[in-house]
Amino acid sequence: MPNPTAAMLVIGDEILSGRTRDANTHYLAGQLTEAGIDLKEVRVVSDDAPAIVAAVKALSAAYDSVFTSGGIGPTHDDITADCIAQAFDDHIDVRDDARALLAAHYERNGQELNDARLRMARIPDSATLIDNPVSVAPGFTIQNVHVMAGVPSVFQAMVATVLPTLKGGAPLLSQTLRVQRGEGDIAGPLAQFAQDFSDLSVGSYPFQKDGVYGSNIVVRGTDAIRLDVAMTALTAIFAA
Amino acid sequence: MPNPTAAMLVIGDEILSGRTRDANTHYLAGQLTEAGIDLKEVRVVSDDAPAIVAAVKALSAAYDSVFTSGGIGPTHDDITADCIAQAFDDHIDVRDDARALLAAHYERNGQELNDARLRMARIPDSATLIDNPVSVAPGFTIQNVHVMAGVPSVFQAMVATVLPTLKGGAPLLSQTLRVQRGEGDIAGPLAQFAQDFSDLSVGSYPFQKDGVYGSNIVVRGTDAIRLDVAMTALTAIFAA
Repeated sequence: MPNPTAAMLVIGDEILSGRTRDANTHYLAGQLTEAGIDLKEVRVVSDDAPAIVAAVKALSAAYDSVFTSGGIGPTHDDITADCIAQAFDDHIDVRDDARALLAAHYERNGQELNDARLRMARIPDSATLIDNPVSVAPGFTIQNVHVMAGVPSVFQAMVATVLPTLKGGAPLLSQTLRVQRGEGDIAGPLAQFAQDFSDLSVGSYPFQKDGVYGSNIVVRGTDAIRLDVAMTALTAIFAA
Repeated sequence: MPNPTAAMLVIGDEILSGRTRDANTHYLAGQLTEAGIDLKEVRVVSDDAPAIVAAVKALSAAYDSVFTSGGIGPTHDDITADCIAQAFDDHIDVRDDARALLAAHYERNGQELNDARLRMARIPDSATLIDNPVSVAPGFTIQNVHVMAGVPSVFQAMVATVLPTLKGGAPLLSQTLRVQRGEGDIAGPLAQFAQDFSDLSVGSYPFQKDGVYGSNIVVRGTDAIRLDVAMTALTAIFAA
């Protein structure tokens, strides 16, 4: 049975302007691979309502689950929650359960739960809250979309909450053979090898560093024994 | 007049599996911002022909220019050139101009121009070659799509070749005010400020480090004097 599929949607002008380098995609990719969920597509869009709505709809329809990051804070440019509600045609307003979390938090810290902070309690009616152990303001899950914060520490905490609730597949295992020959030299025999082991995924990733060049050949699959057989064959091919 | 728009398409299983962290998007984002071209969307797809073809078509239709990275090497998993030809319904085969570049290069290095390396001379009929000063195998431009290598040093060299040929807009300038108050405290006055300076883009990016928290307020625009006026107003608001 094929693994479940997933997509990531990164929301934020700061990524597209080059001001901030997105760290969440790489983190999520590693976590999903370990869980046996295949990350199939990533999109980055700006803080623009039509762009967010269209991307959420397209990804939610195409993949088993979707993870979003960014745009759920208290400032005027945080429009993700409202866009998600729009994408699913759901009603959205300040919700009592989210408000209660925020009220308790700000009272503990002697801070005011003002209108801006209350924006973070805007949650679509049909959504389930995602716990935020870092800074309290919750994420939420609606249908197959998990809406999470952009701040990496919060994003990672939310992934830790959501992942165990998802049906995973067989974790993808990988082994790498480093070959100090150019891709052009190895490509012929490698194509034959990939055909012989067509049940596995075979990738070639060239490197060039300090005058040394070559390729890392990565073989991926879910069956450890089959992977060992492949690596033995691969090593024999390029030991020649 | 609004700036020209662009999209980036990153092609490669290694990014989606978490094995490799994409560096090209962040680089391109910075270069485009300097050139006054607005990067509006990024997509990452796997080495899968239907996914690549669909993404190229969608992005090419939606934006003024598209940059792709990855999948133009000599190995069996390098299928980008053929997918691009398919997306534009163009014929593709080994092209004489690209073959001549490779032949001269491998002769200089005493290496064989074998079938695998010849794959890198597969270029759609209507495309224009993009120079590769690092490792010779060219990229290419077809209509509004620039097809470039995934290896960062080669990608960057190709961006340097392509960018001066594009019509840029007014470079986007930005100024940042660092405020050591939580986003929830500043969001109200900040929303009013964003409304007063609605000709500028105003973003708030929270940070939390070593127990200090606050927000970087970034104001972006193309008019340096207007930006100075805005920053003076912004500083006055949060100096209180």
